Amino acid sequence: MSLPDLLAAARPGVLLFSLTPPRSSATPERVKEIAAVTLDRLAALDLDGLILYDIDDESDRNPAERPFPYLPTMDPAEYWSSYLGGFPLPVVIYRCVGKYAPDDLRSWLRAADPTRLLTVLVGASSGDKPARTSLREAQALRAAVAPSLPLGSVAISERRDEHLRMLTKQDRGATFFVSQVVYDVNETKNLVSDYYYECAARGVTRRTVIFTLSLCGSLKTLEFLGWLGVEVPRWLRTSIRQSPDPLSESYRQTMAIARDLATFCDHLGMPYGFNVESVSIRRAEIEATTDLAADVAALLPRR
Amino acid sequence: MSLPDLLAAARPGVLLFSLTPPRSSATPERVKEIAAVTLDRLAALDLDGLILYDIDDESDRNPAERPFPYLPTMDPAEYWSSYLGGFPLPVVIYRCVGKYAPDDLRSWLRAADPTRLLTVLVGASSGDKPARTSLREAQALRAAVAPSLPLGSVAISERRDEHLRMLTKQDRGATFFVSQVVYDVNETKNLVSDYYYECAARGVTRRTVIFTLSLCGSLKTLEFLGWLGVEVPRWLRTSIRQSPDPLSESYRQTMAIARDLATFCDHLGMPYGFNVESVSIRRAEIEATTDLAADVAALLPRR
Repeated sequence: MSLPDLLAAARPGVLLFSLTPPRSSATPERVKEIAAVTLDRLAALDLDGLILYDIDDESDRNPAERPFPYLPTMDPAEYWSSYLGGFPLPVVIYRCVGKYAPDDLRSWLRAADPTRLLTVLVGASSGDKPARTSLREAQALRAAVAPSLPLGSVAISERRDEHLRMLTKQDRGATFFVSQVVYDVNETKNLVSDYYYECAARGVTRRTVIFTLSLCGSLKTLEFLGWLGVEVPRWLRTSIRQSPDPLSESYRQTMAIARDLATFCDHLGMPYGFNVESVSIRRAEIEATTDLAADVAALLPRR
Repeated sequence: MSLPDLLAAARPGVLLFSLTPPRSSATPERVKEIAAVTLDRLAALDLDGLILYDIDDESDRNPAERPFPYLPTMDPAEYWSSYLGGFPLPVVIYRCVGKYAPDDLRSWLRAADPTRLLTVLVGASSGDKPARTSLREAQALRAAVAPSLPLGSVAISERRDEHLRMLTKQDRGATFFVSQVVYDVNETKNLVSDYYYECAARGVTRRTVIFTLSLCGSLKTLEFLGWLGVEVPRWLRTSIRQSPDPLSESYRQTMAIARDLATFCDHLGMPYGFNVESVSIRRAEIEATTDLAADVAALLPRR
């Protein structure tokens, strides 16, 4: 079953892999090389699709210095169409909607091929930031010009009442959710549980929640997660800080999180999937992420 | 190895079962019957010892109505010596020290046989309550008159800086810790992690932490846990409330907690054990607790 069909049917076990497009400053030759290496790394994985992020600088999110510098990246749709044409599976294009004028967003949505693309529309990272298009406007544009383009939304366990926001997004066309990176399983289970029973109470179809997993193999990455506002339990921060090999320690913990969430959702009857990403720019962490995706695939029900 | 030796050597894998003595109002015949049924239930379990609680009314802890009524119970040492003489393993006698005059506590400590008994001294449940003996006085009494009687202390994950309190108790003679009932694994891992690394920083021996596990098989028990101040994550409260069979749901979750803590401590190299108890007075929960102890025993390293 293709990714759009899996999501439309809310079938459990979706597996995605997410990439950040290369820097805008990279030469076309360099981008070609990166794309070839990436496609090669992904070929062996049993994925349902790819996510391509749209990076916003998010300096409004946190005035403290960003542990990894912000560098402008290529447009995700452009990276896909010009360099990842060889990738045989559907691709989820993120759009930080505040970056775009409504007309630009409308043209892109209208042209997007719903048999090969899906989109996740992301609102501004803080309310204070001037947004060229608001999330609500973007959702309305998509409903008007691209109703058959599958729409996803982000879900952030750390926010109170996030399950109610998810239901509002569902009313506005979202048919799947992608979580922020999960390190605090309790918070994520709270969100899933609240969402599951609220859907039951309203008689609304439960949509797939795709949990994002990411290794944290260095103190720098840990610092970056703090900067992003991701909750990492104290014992987990300590175990990564104290470990002689933080990357393997983080690998162990991330697999434990994946197993815990899969068992929880299977038992509850909640449609779920995983998205494996690397928030780091370090090579060792990126390579371990490919292994992680293979191990996570082995946990999932056959699709 | 006997329980005092396992604790002295900080060997992992200790398994205890805890009981609340019968009500003070029960006739000697009824107490005999209860003791016989209890010994029979425990005979098949691979335990290292028993805990007998000393019940304080704790009405000072929470002014709200207690979901299970407080009923005075027999003295734990009296229950043991008069009715549980047939039990072949060491017994940990709890003492809520505030209930006793120093002279009474001194006499009991002096007479306690350190080859068959251990004790856990518990301070008043709130600072406002008048205490006939303070925890600190009781610790000093034991050091003076019964230095060879193994001393334990309670450990409460929900308290900030509990790892520092544990180290103070250790300075005053404690050689093991028994936790409050664990439902929030994150909080418990935070405590163990803080304690483990603080011991390393101070060059102090790590003492065994015995995690208390208890089923929560009814809404009434859930309410009681709230009254006691035990943190139960929202998703876990919901799963018990929503389940058509709360007792099996709770059994599943408690085993998951036990596995998670055992894996965590094994990996860290932290000496640990489990104490299986029932906070409920319902027969079905008490019987399931015996099964739980057998399943938990199977998780532990051979002792």
